[in-house]
Amino acid sequence: MIPKSHVDLLTRPLFAHLATIRSDGMPQVNPMWFSWDGTFLRFTNTTRRRKHRNVTEEPRVAISVNDPEQPYRYLEVRGRVERIEPDPTAAFFAELAQRYELTLDGPPPDAPDRVVFVVRPEAVSYQ
Amino acid sequence: MIPKSHVDLLTRPLFAHLATIRSDGMPQVNPMWFSWDGTFLRFTNTTRRRKHRNVTEEPRVAISVNDPEQPYRYLEVRGRVERIEPDPTAAFFAELAQRYELTLDGPPPDAPDRVVFVVRPEAVSYQ
Repeated sequence: MIPKSHVDLLTRPLFAHLATIRSDGMPQVNPMWFSWDGTFLRFTNTTRRRKHRNVTEEPRVAISVNDPEQPYRYLEVRGRVERIEPDPTAAFFAELAQRYELTLDGPPPDAPDRVVFVVRPEAVSYQ
Repeated sequence: MIPKSHVDLLTRPLFAHLATIRSDGMPQVNPMWFSWDGTFLRFTNTTRRRKHRNVTEEPRVAISVNDPEQPYRYLEVRGRVERIEPDPTAAFFAELAQRYELTLDGPPPDAPDRVVFVVRPEAVSYQ
């Protein structure tokens, strides 16, 4: 589903602007770390954040990623949070920190609340 | 409402990732040109695009802009399309093209359908 011409926007450690829907129906959008394994997009979050409540209530989400070197080149992926996995040791958080070249001094203080949003793409648009 | 510390993310010609809601309730998010005059965010679009239908049906939108030099520094603005103004000479489109340093060979072919989304901010988040 992801066009070969644009898959680099998922494999490079760029920021995805993740749109979710708030309980009152208003959209919310924030830059997020993510990973892509060819099937799923994954995001780290915690059960104490607004975004977690949003995707629990409305699993449909969308991301926009553009190329910092050619900003008119972009990929939008719309999809669904298929499952939310616990990450109590923050292992996935650490994996993303490594991908984004951030040095950690051990797990974050909110590790017990950490979760992974596992998103299956359903549609794309790109330029 | 926009914090002084982050207003440069609106005054610099960066791309805003604009989240809108599709008629089936699914979010959509795309990088967009925009302008900020201290009160309103403005976007160029056409009456023939999906985004126009989205904001006509659901005027609540959100944008995320991050700093290309410090990508963890970002501003989210949530708001409402307060009005949609016709732009049949593409004058606003040309103003944005100049802001984004794109040279135009006259008005775009879709000028007759051009409109301006005028968005009033209602809430912000930032880091």
